[in-house]
Amino acid sequence: MFLPRKLLEERLRVMLAEDMGQGDVTTALIVPEGITVEAEVVANESGVAAGMEEAKVLLESLGLNVKGLIADGEEIKTSQCLLRISGDARTVLSVERTLLNILSRMSGIATNTRKLVQKIKKAGLKTRVACTRKTAPGLLYFDKKAVLIGGGDPHRFHLDDMILIKDNHIAIAGSIEKAIKNAKAKASFSKKVEIEITKSADVVRTAKNGADIIMLDNFSPKQIEGAIKALKKAGLLGKVLLEASGGIKAENFLAYASTGVEIVSLGEITDSTKALDISLEVKNTRKVR
Amino acid sequence: MFLPRKLLEERLRVMLAEDMGQGDVTTALIVPEGITVEAEVVANESGVAAGMEEAKVLLESLGLNVKGLIADGEEIKTSQCLLRISGDARTVLSVERTLLNILSRMSGIATNTRKLVQKIKKAGLKTRVACTRKTAPGLLYFDKKAVLIGGGDPHRFHLDDMILIKDNHIAIAGSIEKAIKNAKAKASFSKKVEIEITKSADVVRTAKNGADIIMLDNFSPKQIEGAIKALKKAGLLGKVLLEASGGIKAENFLAYASTGVEIVSLGEITDSTKALDISLEVKNTRKVR
Amino acid sequence: MFLPRKLLEERLRVMLAEDMGQGDVTTALIVPEGITVEAEVVANESGVAAGMEEAKVLLESLGLNVKGLIADGEEIKTSQCLLRISGDARTVLSVERTLLNILSRMSGIATNTRKLVQKIKKAGLKTRVACTRKTAPGLLYFDKKAVLIGGGDPHRFHLDDMILIKDNHIAIAGSIEKAIKNAKAKASFSKKVEIEITKSADVVRTAKNGADIIMLDNFSPKQIEGAIKALKKAGLLGKVLLEASGGIKAENFLAYASTGVEIVSLGEITDSTKALDISLEVKNTRKVR
Amino acid sequence: MFLPRKLLEERLRVMLAEDMGQGDVTTALIVPEGITVEAEVVANESGVAAGMEEAKVLLESLGLNVKGLIADGEEIKTSQCLLRISGDARTVLSVERTLLNILSRMSGIATNTRKLVQKIKKAGLKTRVACTRKTAPGLLYFDKKAVLIGGGDPHRFHLDDMILIKDNHIAIAGSIEKAIKNAKAKASFSKKVEIEITKSADVVRTAKNGADIIMLDNFSPKQIEGAIKALKKAGLLGKVLLEASGGIKAENFLAYASTGVEIVSLGEITDSTKALDISLEVKNTRKVR
Amino acid sequence: MFLPRKLLEERLRVMLAEDMGQGDVTTALIVPEGITVEAEVVANESGVAAGMEEAKVLLESLGLNVKGLIADGEEIKTSQCLLRISGDARTVLSVERTLLNILSRMSGIATNTRKLVQKIKKAGLKTRVACTRKTAPGLLYFDKKAVLIGGGDPHRFHLDDMILIKDNHIAIAGSIEKAIKNAKAKASFSKKVEIEITKSADVVRTAKNGADIIMLDNFSPKQIEGAIKALKKAGLLGKVLLEASGGIKAENFLAYASTGVEIVSLGEITDSTKALDISLEVKNTRKVR
Amino acid sequence: MFLPRKLLEERLRVMLAEDMGQGDVTTALIVPEGITVEAEVVANESGVAAGMEEAKVLLESLGLNVKGLIADGEEIKTSQCLLRISGDARTVLSVERTLLNILSRMSGIATNTRKLVQKIKKAGLKTRVACTRKTAPGLLYFDKKAVLIGGGDPHRFHLDDMILIKDNHIAIAGSIEKAIKNAKAKASFSKKVEIEITKSADVVRTAKNGADIIMLDNFSPKQIEGAIKALKKAGLLGKVLLEASGGIKAENFLAYASTGVEIVSLGEITDSTKALDISLEVKNTRKVR
Repeated sequence: MFLPRKLLEERLRVMLAEDMGQGDVTTALIVPEGITVEAEVVANESGVAAGMEEAKVLLESLGLNVKGLIADGEEIKTSQCLLRISGDARTVLSVERTLLNILSRMSGIATNTRKLVQKIKKAGLKTRVACTRKTAPGLLYFDKKAVLIGGGDPHRFHLDDMILIKDNHIAIAGSIEKAIKNAKAKASFSKKVEIEITKSADVVRTAKNGADIIMLDNFSPKQIEGAIKALKKAGLLGKVLLEASGGIKAENFLAYASTGVEIVSLGEITDSTKALDISLEVKNTRKVR
Repeated sequence: MFLPRKLLEERLRVMLAEDMGQGDVTTALIVPEGITVEAEVVANESGVAAGMEEAKVLLESLGLNVKGLIADGEEIKTSQCLLRISGDARTVLSVERTLLNILSRMSGIATNTRKLVQKIKKAGLKTRVACTRKTAPGLLYFDKKAVLIGGGDPHRFHLDDMILIKDNHIAIAGSIEKAIKNAKAKASFSKKVEIEITKSADVVRTAKNGADIIMLDNFSPKQIEGAIKALKKAGLLGKVLLEASGGIKAENFLAYASTGVEIVSLGEITDSTKALDISLEVKNTRKVR
Repeated sequence: MFLPRKLLEERLRVMLAEDMGQGDVTTALIVPEGITVEAEVVANESGVAAGMEEAKVLLESLGLNVKGLIADGEEIKTSQCLLRISGDARTVLSVERTLLNILSRMSGIATNTRKLVQKIKKAGLKTRVACTRKTAPGLLYFDKKAVLIGGGDPHRFHLDDMILIKDNHIAIAGSIEKAIKNAKAKASFSKKVEIEITKSADVVRTAKNGADIIMLDNFSPKQIEGAIKALKKAGLLGKVLLEASGGIKAENFLAYASTGVEIVSLGEITDSTKALDISLEVKNTRKVR
Repeated sequence: MFLPRKLLEERLRVMLAEDMGQGDVTTALIVPEGITVEAEVVANESGVAAGMEEAKVLLESLGLNVKGLIADGEEIKTSQCLLRISGDARTVLSVERTLLNILSRMSGIATNTRKLVQKIKKAGLKTRVACTRKTAPGLLYFDKKAVLIGGGDPHRFHLDDMILIKDNHIAIAGSIEKAIKNAKAKASFSKKVEIEITKSADVVRTAKNGADIIMLDNFSPKQIEGAIKALKKAGLLGKVLLEASGGIKAENFLAYASTGVEIVSLGEITDSTKALDISLEVKNTRKVR
Repeated sequence: MFLPRKLLEERLRVMLAEDMGQGDVTTALIVPEGITVEAEVVANESGVAAGMEEAKVLLESLGLNVKGLIADGEEIKTSQCLLRISGDARTVLSVERTLLNILSRMSGIATNTRKLVQKIKKAGLKTRVACTRKTAPGLLYFDKKAVLIGGGDPHRFHLDDMILIKDNHIAIAGSIEKAIKNAKAKASFSKKVEIEITKSADVVRTAKNGADIIMLDNFSPKQIEGAIKALKKAGLLGKVLLEASGGIKAENFLAYASTGVEIVSLGEITDSTKALDISLEVKNTRKVR
Repeated sequence: MFLPRKLLEERLRVMLAEDMGQGDVTTALIVPEGITVEAEVVANESGVAAGMEEAKVLLESLGLNVKGLIADGEEIKTSQCLLRISGDARTVLSVERTLLNILSRMSGIATNTRKLVQKIKKAGLKTRVACTRKTAPGLLYFDKKAVLIGGGDPHRFHLDDMILIKDNHIAIAGSIEKAIKNAKAKASFSKKVEIEITKSADVVRTAKNGADIIMLDNFSPKQIEGAIKALKKAGLLGKVLLEASGGIKAENFLAYASTGVEIVSLGEITDSTKALDISLEVKNTRKVR
């Protein structure tokens, strides 16, 4: 998810503009032109840093000097200083909230993702933790990037970058076979084909028909194990990736991850995330002229 | 927060466009043109409905028929059907995720807000629950509206609609007195002036200088009670609104609400919200031609 | 109304783009690449400078060197040079009209506002001169900022930053009392509540019900004085701000300002403004290569 | 200046969005959903109607019923009703100011233009009244269209639709001859070539070199008559259009128009216009459900 | 590539706005309001229809009645009528060029694609014809959709929807093995991994390391056959998709398609396309009022 | 067509954003941060350079160093290096395709235009080669600028910058005379009036009525010569510009150019252009840190 800096700048500026409205009236009244400040962005709790690149790009695009003290993906300790900023006081005070909203959302997502990734590592597993399309509207890039930084898999970005055949598609197509056949015949060779099934009984016929990935939707861990046995028996295990999805939360996550599926995906990483508590503190104020 | 429907439509369409990318490739492959479906939007858990107006406007703007079965602000029971949709199958399947992302985020925020509002009512208090500017970047309108629907106070929208003098402003102004004086002299008569203080000792001098609202930042409930006593003693209680803010969470919320402040504000309503679990189910499929 | 420079730049660039269309065909034909000019922006009449910050940001964002010779809010004398510009000739000639349109509109508004402010000062009054929402569509920021620079009050910016209950709202609410009660109960604590009345007889009951501001709409100065007397008698004078509005023009302005109201607002500051006559003169031309 | 309705709608919606901010908070509080109103747009002074098409398109795009009672270009009498509107009360109250700002600016420009056009007719002349590029930034389309409706000439729209060689261009080109020669050789055949001269002495050589139009910049009426005589003597009168520009105002306008030039252009039609006083009155309120 | 109609409308409207500038001045002068026309869109040469959906959506969004007489993907005969349009004359005349530009570009691309697809069918082959990212800037959706309609494969849309490791990536990674290993370890499971090789000698080691697709870049047909033999020998044929790319044109296309690769991709389908000759003829004019 | 660099930058960035989607996933995986490359943009065939300014502006706006080795309009030899680029490897690899798409389209258009211009010069003629409005939707600026660079005439840009009365307009106006009369009376003095005729018989009456330009639509070269004779006979030759248009292609182009018309316009320069084959080669890779 590499974006040339100018494109990232524009996305960040839209966010800043939303918060500014017709301008910061408080700062205009209280802070004279020509004042310079030094400030620190500090984490008030531990977690995983994400949004550091965004923070730097946003601040530098406004003419501020920034020194990042931690890289995206590194672990934050409570009270750790993440960024040092210096420059025009009016600008620093006006951008504060937007900056923190980005950093604390992205770091919150990365932190939660990392927790799941660590659980998997501790359990000696190799399962991937994936997010879904349950991102905050407008924040797809930022939410998915935070998942990546946390060690997760961003899954597909849009409705355009993968074939994912869901139950409603199958119902309209008539059968799993017809849906896959149709997809394989007409989809671009450049895209993977995933198909969602809701019954263990369907896993073998689905794998036979050539899906790249099978999504086991709302299966219990036990049902998943049943499906895996059936695939093994049919000599199809390993020929298709398996993704467990639906009804998975932090609490039952490990049970799913231990079933043998390659991917466990859950919506709450992005739609029910807890922001990391980060704040900005002005350290020093100087009159330039 | 009344927006003429066309303006709301445009904001919603930007969200849909993000998810669509260059178009839904799965639906294009599997669902022929000319198929009509009926679908239901169903809540998988209880809560407070929010985003119903947004859902209706989004769906109708795409040419779908919508019947809302619950109004914004009403309580949702588990398994309750919120909306019935009928129309072009390709459109319904393509808009599904965007629709649910909006509904589940807004309803999640409204649900959490309502819980706090209920706590206050139960305790026989009149304190207002307010959110902050810790909204998801780009979603200010939707997050604040959901807070309103839940019974909360949206607080200021932008940096332009209220004077809110924070510690860093005071530091630059030189003193609380200078900051307020400056603000009162130069701010538009149309805006309220709020000032943030961090020490109980400052509450009386702040009230004396004519702030409309005093934000007690990171005070303990006890410190707040001290401040209120001091105001009372000085004959200033009731002359200024008091807002408790900083470090407030669902757990300690009631302790703050019981201190006698008019407003308790907390960031987690909007920055750490849990999405309400809502899904769309296709009920019926018909070929039109 | 402080906007970080990059956000201001974008608003200004939209203006430039409008004037450029598919590009300056004259300059492309006549002026070779690699020519540098020095130019001066000169006022052809006296007034108050406004738009100087906008001018600087616009020109510098195009890579030109700018030296401002006057600050926003300072008085301009006829023939005074406001800005010195140097840089690429093609750019200077192409931006000329957009630059002057911004400067001359904003300075025109500031100049007219200042005249009213001076009248008030001369008369030993403290009344505020406010503009209204009668700004040129799309120019809200620039028009209101020019009013501020001229010494006026920008009033509310949007329909979102203040409760202003007008006659049509009251008619629908049923009564002044119901309208205010509704507003006070449900409006955010962060916003002031203003209510417009059209009869002197209503002023006391309106003030009693707790409005922050009462707009006396289309009152004669005499009627306003009657209203003030009534408030005094009821012990409510000073408990509510009074704004005279409607039918006020430069000619009758002082009569209104002398009545004792805190604010006099008039639409013509922004909707019938006279542009200040400002022009750009190229002084020096040099071939760079 | 015919724009398909959908394109006009979008330009108008941007204007409405500016005024709405995050939504009309007053209307949301006071006016319940499901109320219908009838309203009239009434002129409080006489003038020329302009912006009627814009008004209709804006209102209808919001789902309101509109009945136009006057066409663009027709004369308005004091107290005349211009438009009848019916529909959703919240929408009507929210759009009121944007609607009136457009109508009153455009009608103001058309009214002033018409006054000049009438002066010319009364004097038995055929001179054209043209505006310049001194339009309000962002309002080029609306300002120029209002001039057209008033009977004036919109002049060029952008820097891209005509070659207009000004003094600074000539200075860089080296001479009038070189500038025209260059332009004639390289400009698209589809564009006219106008050249600005500042001395009577230059008029004959300019006409000889083939300009389509000569702009007599900051000439006195007397100097213009001198230039015309010179052209006549050289047998060039009628071979080139003459435009008087610079320093022309309503007061001296007729003196210029009587000199024999084909076009008189003046900036004040668009940059110093007086808004026509127009207001909206709600007539009738009904609850729909 | 299914886009909900409203999203397609917006993309088309941007195109129309570009052509309109400040409005159609000819139509405004010559065609009175209230005239209705019937018109036909006719092909002046044979080919494959594409852009019919776009045409319908564009025209209907402007309030015109449209009757499509051919579906996207069907064959057009010379002089065939593709569309019948009726409605407001000013709108029809103003949209004509934009409409035809879309239809003739998309149909031109589909026609050329179809020719290649037919060559393959005639030769009894199953090779896919794919386009590349050499689309006209801004027209990615339309160009790729036209390729699809013509029977081709749209290949990846953006830099975000597939891993495609090119020579420059390999150079930086150090080796083919390292590049693939890196990609397989870190890329989302939802994306295919393609790798470009420039020497036959690399094909076996590339296939061994697990690429989903190998792009044989600038190979001669002979070199491709060599690569296929090597894969066969290594027992890897059929385990990886092969794409021939680079230096392929209509003339040598079949030689490439016959080598046994699954995909042949060529830039000229989209970057050197010939527009299909299509025009609009007004048939009937009626005055509505 | 001079656009200040910042405005050009924005247009180019929209193009880049289209190709990037949610970011370059390949580069993000394979190319570490902190790598610098040197690259060359090389032409693989001969032609005329166009888009060099665009290339420079795009690359520099992304922070890359660029050295242009050829100017727009100069002739390119096969294998010639056009540009040297150095800077951040991720940025170079991500922008490659957008850069080349712009350069190869613009150079392709310029090359084809130049071929026609050369034919004319060789034949000792002075006819102008003009393009039409058949530009790729969204690329009007770039396509027309490339024509200019190739030595052609860009014709009108939009529907707003010239009066061009076509057959359908005439049909609605009633007659050629009425159409011209209407246009001459009401069109802005700043615009030329062109009228399209389809029969030789109409040329004299059209010229008599004062058109600036007559478009001879779908005339054979012979018919054009007839029309010219008729004009001569009527003493009108040279009083009006003549443009041949419709059915003109590279093959029959010279026959039209030799007839004596001033302008020959043809759609295929922009709607059926062949991209020039240009590629980017990375030369050198260095780790910065």
